[in-house]
Amino acid sequence: MKLITVGSVAFDAIETPFGKTDKIVGGAGSYIALTASYFAQNTGLVSVIGDDFDQDFLGHITGRGVNLEGLETKEGEKSFFWSGKYHNDMNSRDTLVTELNVLGDFQPKVPESYHGADFLMLGNLSPDVQMQVIDQLPNRPKLVVLDTMNFWMDIAWDDLMKVLTKIDVLTINDEEARQLSKEYSLVKAAQKIMEMGPKYLIIKKGEHGALLFNKENQVFFAPALPLEEVFDPTGAGDTFAGGFIGYLASTNDISFENMKRAIIVGSAMASFCVEKFGTERLMNLSQEEIQTRIEEFVGLTQFDMSLAL
Amino acid sequence: MKLITVGSVAFDAIETPFGKTDKIVGGAGSYIALTASYFAQNTGLVSVIGDDFDQDFLGHITGRGVNLEGLETKEGEKSFFWSGKYHNDMNSRDTLVTELNVLGDFQPKVPESYHGADFLMLGNLSPDVQMQVIDQLPNRPKLVVLDTMNFWMDIAWDDLMKVLTKIDVLTINDEEARQLSKEYSLVKAAQKIMEMGPKYLIIKKGEHGALLFNKENQVFFAPALPLEEVFDPTGAGDTFAGGFIGYLASTNDISFENMKRAIIVGSAMASFCVEKFGTERLMNLSQEEIQTRIEEFVGLTQFDMSLAL
Repeated sequence: MKLITVGSVAFDAIETPFGKTDKIVGGAGSYIALTASYFAQNTGLVSVIGDDFDQDFLGHITGRGVNLEGLETKEGEKSFFWSGKYHNDMNSRDTLVTELNVLGDFQPKVPESYHGADFLMLGNLSPDVQMQVIDQLPNRPKLVVLDTMNFWMDIAWDDLMKVLTKIDVLTINDEEARQLSKEYSLVKAAQKIMEMGPKYLIIKKGEHGALLFNKENQVFFAPALPLEEVFDPTGAGDTFAGGFIGYLASTNDISFENMKRAIIVGSAMASFCVEKFGTERLMNLSQEEIQTRIEEFVGLTQFDMSLAL
Repeated sequence: MKLITVGSVAFDAIETPFGKTDKIVGGAGSYIALTASYFAQNTGLVSVIGDDFDQDFLGHITGRGVNLEGLETKEGEKSFFWSGKYHNDMNSRDTLVTELNVLGDFQPKVPESYHGADFLMLGNLSPDVQMQVIDQLPNRPKLVVLDTMNFWMDIAWDDLMKVLTKIDVLTINDEEARQLSKEYSLVKAAQKIMEMGPKYLIIKKGEHGALLFNKENQVFFAPALPLEEVFDPTGAGDTFAGGFIGYLASTNDISFENMKRAIIVGSAMASFCVEKFGTERLMNLSQEEIQTRIEEFVGLTQFDMSLAL
C-alpha cells in the first residue's frame, strides 16, 4: 500500500450566504481520500461509519481505487454529524450541531494489508486516536503528515505533544499556529513548533494561502487562487491535505522542492473544493481541469527575475 | 526627466509595541522618492514643506539623484505632521494627530524641467491635487500610477472618479477596493474598478501580499516576506509603490511580465521598510542587500511544475 488516510467519514449540513444543504457527505477522511485518489494509486482509508452512511459515495471512491478494508461500519449506529453556518465574509462560522455518534469511541484498526504503507495522512481526530494508528504500523512510513485543530490544543495538550514527536509534517491554520507556539509572528511560531517534533510545518491561511517551513529555515508560500465567489469553504483544508499527500505519494519524492509542487497541487484542489457545496466539485474532475488549474497557479505566481537589476 | 513623484514630505511620530519616535521624516513622497532612487536615475519630486523640515533628509535624497526643484518651501510655515499608534497586531492603528499645515492649501507646481517625464507616480493626496499635476504636464507620461485611500472615497468621490479616468495603474488596499467597488470579492472588485478607468489595479493586502490585475483577466500575486518581527509598518505601501515605479522607470518596460518583476521589487523594498522606524532602513541599502532580498522572494515563491502529473 502506498498511502493510508485516517479521518472522519461523516455527514455535514452546511449553510452559507449562497444556500443550505441537507445532510451531505463530509469529514476529513472523505475529502482527503477522494482528493488523493486523483494522484496516488493503491491507497486505503481507516475510519468508522454508522449503517446510515451514503453507499453511493463509498462506491464512488472505491471505483477511484480507494481501499475501504479499514472502514468499519457499526450496525445500528449513526455516522458522525456536523452542522455549521458561515458568516457573510465566509472567514468564520458557527457550529450549530456536533453529534459524535460512532466517532465517540472510535478505535482505529489498521488492516494487515495496509502495513508497509510509505505515506500516512492523519486527518484531524483526537491525538490519542492518531497515535493508535502510528502504533499499529509495524514499519514506520516514509512520511507521516498530521492535521489537528485548536480543540485538541484546548483539551488534549499532552496527547498532542506526544504525537507531534512521531510525525514529519504538521498542518494547522495561522491561529492554531499562534495558539500552539504562543508566538504572534508566524516565523517565530514555526521555529517553536518544529522544536516540538515535526520537521516540516504547513500553516494554512485560508484565502491568504499557505506557508511551508522546514527546519533549515527554508520557506515556501502558495497563494489561494483569487476566485469570484467562494461558495462553501467546508473541506478546503482537508482537500489541500489530500492533494499534498496524494501528489507526494504518487511521485514518491519527499524533497523540499517536491513539497513545493505538492503545496501547489493541494492549493489547486482546494480551489475546486470551495466552488460548490461539500465534495460535489471534487467527485468528477478531469485530468485536464486539474492541469489547467495548476497552470493558473503558475501564471499567478511565477516570474522571471533573471534580468539583472 | 524619467520619473516624477508627487506626495507628502512630512513629519511622523509613531508608536508601536516596540517603541516610539519623536518627529521623524515621513510622507508618501519621501518614501517613494527615496525608494525609487535605488532603481531609476533622473527623477524629480513635487511637494511642499515648511521651513522646519529636515535638511539632512533632503540632502540625502539629493545625493541619491532626486531633483528637488519641484519641492516648495513655505517660509514661516510648518510641514505636514501625522502621529499614530499601532495596535498589538500591527494590522490596525489609531491616528492621534493630523496637522495639515502647508499641505492644507497645497497647489502643486511642476517645474518645466520635469516636463516630458515618462513615468508619473501620484502618491496619496487629494484627487484634486493629483489632477492638477496631470493637467500641468504638456505631454502625457507613458505610465501614470495613482495611490489613494478610503478618506478620499468618503469626502471627494466625484474628484476621485474624474482622476481615475486619467491614470493607468491604481494602487489601493483590500478594504479600499471593496469600498470603491461595493464588491466583497476582490476579483469582482478588480473588474469593476478597472471599468472606472485604470488599465491595471494593484490591491495591497499588507502582510498578506499584493495582487496585480489587468483588463485581460491576468492576475499576479506576490506575498509579503514572512518576517520574525514587523517593527513599524508605516510607509510600507509607499515604499512598495516606490520600488514598483522605480523598477518600471529604470527598465522602461511596462509589459505585464515586467510589472510582475516590479511587484516583486516593490515587495522586497517594503520588507526592508518595516524592519525599522520610518525611513531609517531605506536610507543606505546596498545593491547586494536588495539583490539578496529579491532572491528570498524567488525562493519563497518559485517552483518547477514542468514535471508531468
